[in-house]
Amino acid sequence: MYYIKNVRLYTGERSFPRGAVVTDGDSIVYAGTEIDAPEAAGAEVIDGGGGICMPGLSNAHSHAPMVLLRGEGADLPLAEWLACVQRLEENFTPETVYTGTMLAIMEMMRGGITSFADMYFECPDMIRAVLDSGIRANISRGSTSVEGVMSHRELHREFDGADGRVRVYVGLHAEYTSDETTARAAAELARELGVGVHVHLSESAPEVAGCFERHGMTPPAYFERTGLFDVPVIAAHCVHLSDGDIEILASHGVTAAHCPASNMYLCSGVSPTAKLLARGVRVGIGTDGAASNNTLDMFREMRLAALAAKISAGTASALPARKVIEMATADGAAAMGFDRSGVLAPGRAADLVLLDGDTLHLNADDIPTAVVYSASAADVRLTMAAGRILYRDGEYKTVDAERIRADGKRAAAHLRGK
Amino acid sequence: MYYIKNVRLYTGERSFPRGAVVTDGDSIVYAGTEIDAPEAAGAEVIDGGGGICMPGLSNAHSHAPMVLLRGEGADLPLAEWLACVQRLEENFTPETVYTGTMLAIMEMMRGGITSFADMYFECPDMIRAVLDSGIRANISRGSTSVEGVMSHRELHREFDGADGRVRVYVGLHAEYTSDETTARAAAELARELGVGVHVHLSESAPEVAGCFERHGMTPPAYFERTGLFDVPVIAAHCVHLSDGDIEILASHGVTAAHCPASNMYLCSGVSPTAKLLARGVRVGIGTDGAASNNTLDMFREMRLAALAAKISAGTASALPARKVIEMATADGAAAMGFDRSGVLAPGRAADLVLLDGDTLHLNADDIPTAVVYSASAADVRLTMAAGRILYRDGEYKTVDAERIRADGKRAAAHLRGK
Repeated sequence: MYYIKNVRLYTGERSFPRGAVVTDGDSIVYAGTEIDAPEAAGAEVIDGGGGICMPGLSNAHSHAPMVLLRGEGADLPLAEWLACVQRLEENFTPETVYTGTMLAIMEMMRGGITSFADMYFECPDMIRAVLDSGIRANISRGSTSVEGVMSHRELHREFDGADGRVRVYVGLHAEYTSDETTARAAAELARELGVGVHVHLSESAPEVAGCFERHGMTPPAYFERTGLFDVPVIAAHCVHLSDGDIEILASHGVTAAHCPASNMYLCSGVSPTAKLLARGVRVGIGTDGAASNNTLDMFREMRLAALAAKISAGTASALPARKVIEMATADGAAAMGFDRSGVLAPGRAADLVLLDGDTLHLNADDIPTAVVYSASAADVRLTMAAGRILYRDGEYKTVDAERIRADGKRAAAHLRGK
Repeated sequence: MYYIKNVRLYTGERSFPRGAVVTDGDSIVYAGTEIDAPEAAGAEVIDGGGGICMPGLSNAHSHAPMVLLRGEGADLPLAEWLACVQRLEENFTPETVYTGTMLAIMEMMRGGITSFADMYFECPDMIRAVLDSGIRANISRGSTSVEGVMSHRELHREFDGADGRVRVYVGLHAEYTSDETTARAAAELARELGVGVHVHLSESAPEVAGCFERHGMTPPAYFERTGLFDVPVIAAHCVHLSDGDIEILASHGVTAAHCPASNMYLCSGVSPTAKLLARGVRVGIGTDGAASNNTLDMFREMRLAALAAKISAGTASALPARKVIEMATADGAAAMGFDRSGVLAPGRAADLVLLDGDTLHLNADDIPTAVVYSASAADVRLTMAAGRILYRDGEYKTVDAERIRADGKRAAAHLRGK
């Protein structure tokens, strides 16, 4: 039980210049003005020092172990970048996937992220890191075959719902890396298991052109035909979309996971976020893997999402700060199956972040404006998921940080054949 | 005299996985491998802890006191934003300009910035803050009249060259806020004083359209005609440029001060950086005022410059990390008249920054890649200008930080009529 006081509170819905939050177990029991906060006998008191308290961030698309590949292929065109990264990826082992996932989780906890949706391989090892660390995650395998798809059945049986923090979705890598039988199998298995699908969608112009050649239609039209959009879907990127594509996403309730830094870094393009939102498509925000970003900083991602949307929509009022925060918290969390996260209110999940009250740069009066346009991961003082403090003032509370860092150095060397 | 050891060194020209830097007075005497470093008897030893050491950053365009207006008018179209900001700007006094400048300088020192080019008003008070703080700056007034232009004569006489850290350029606000007589007066005075000019140029489409109406030509063509480009020029923004405009800038050696965050925040557009560089135009990087950014973080600005250039040039290889650093250091510094800054080499200025060696996110092997794509201002552990430590590990060494912060709160309230 925690009583967090003396904060500038943004609940996800309302601002309180001087607020307080009370948690009990894994839930919020109060979020509002400090003066109205209930007695919380026995609660540990946390003085927020006037810093901003807000919902924890949800990273809607990542490839966690790629922190070990950060910087590889920088400033190279997509094909060369990919060759560079894939050559090193072949050297991953279950152990290095665990270490890479744990390093990524540490970086995410340090930056106020309380849940993430990931697609990679060696999923049991990724989930082990999730369980060991205390963060929430939605894990899927980047399947390219029916066999890969079917591996989710066992993964789901063993881990979905574990500790109330793990969701298993069916991962399908992308249209261009799988055939129609595989896509249909993914749709069917997700329906059978009652879960969603995580897929890369319309990331680059060549991908869309290739899909036209292969199937005579766009990736969204193709996946609609395979039934993939009949289950909940996290569709990463959604950069190159026709108006018809956007209608398909809207009508099926597909969530777009917008990864602006990665899309610019690899020169894939800029997702039409404002248009997606205007048509009612739910949009989350993701960092993508660290090898195409090169951070896992959701604050910088929020800022870039807002700035890029203004240019692409042609008005400075496109994608205002409040909406950006909603995308990076409640909307992303809901898409992953964490419906209780993303808003600080009684009965909701105690997933929250506390920012430094002592910086020079977080002085904007409006809290969402300060968060989106001025904050960075380094401003985080405390990260709490499911009522448990994961990071506080430089200390990782749930993991042996020194050991993971040392393992990380060895793993990075191993991947590079050193 | 300082002996900085155990760093990943990027001199601006070369990388050393384990390097050292030795300073004496305001100069570098050695920058290279640690093993070859000279004896430095009597020097204070600084252990860099394996962090990155690189040239200090040069913020090529700012309006320092606007830190007091941070967040005002966020997410509003340009005209509404401007109205909102200008209404508050009317309440500035010499004292609040000093305080705002000092707060901005603190934020810049904290973020590894060792020089900045600024245009505002109450310039003697701004310069007082520069002199008090130890940073370098190029100061100019945002003149809109001949009288305003002429005020630079006295300013120059009194302050240019002060403590080897102050340059005074002639500030001309912009084409759309001044007449031709004023522009010619600015050109003439700058020539007479042997200094340069700082001006806003082709920031928005309406500005260019208006210039066509007023003068029948683009802003660069107009200023070329007035003789303004016959002296060194820092031209802020340079977003809306024709090919002919770019030729004009190139042939006169005009420096473009690229402010990508501000240009996106206000939906002005994206500067054609790659094209400017290809035609030989020197490009610096600036934050612009904090009210249109909303940080003074040159690391985030570098990252955004690189990402935006990739999208606008259509290739991920546009504006690679090394070039971005050069723009944000040596190129910006040279444009301000600080020719000794921007490269760590014997005889050059001891303007440098040391980053945290203990982060999770600065693990890319290539130093420029780590700096541009992963670092933020918060990673700075030490900032040195002219051989003097300005900031180190949370402490501002040259200013009374607590007093300035308290003054800042009062000044912000004063501006808002509270």
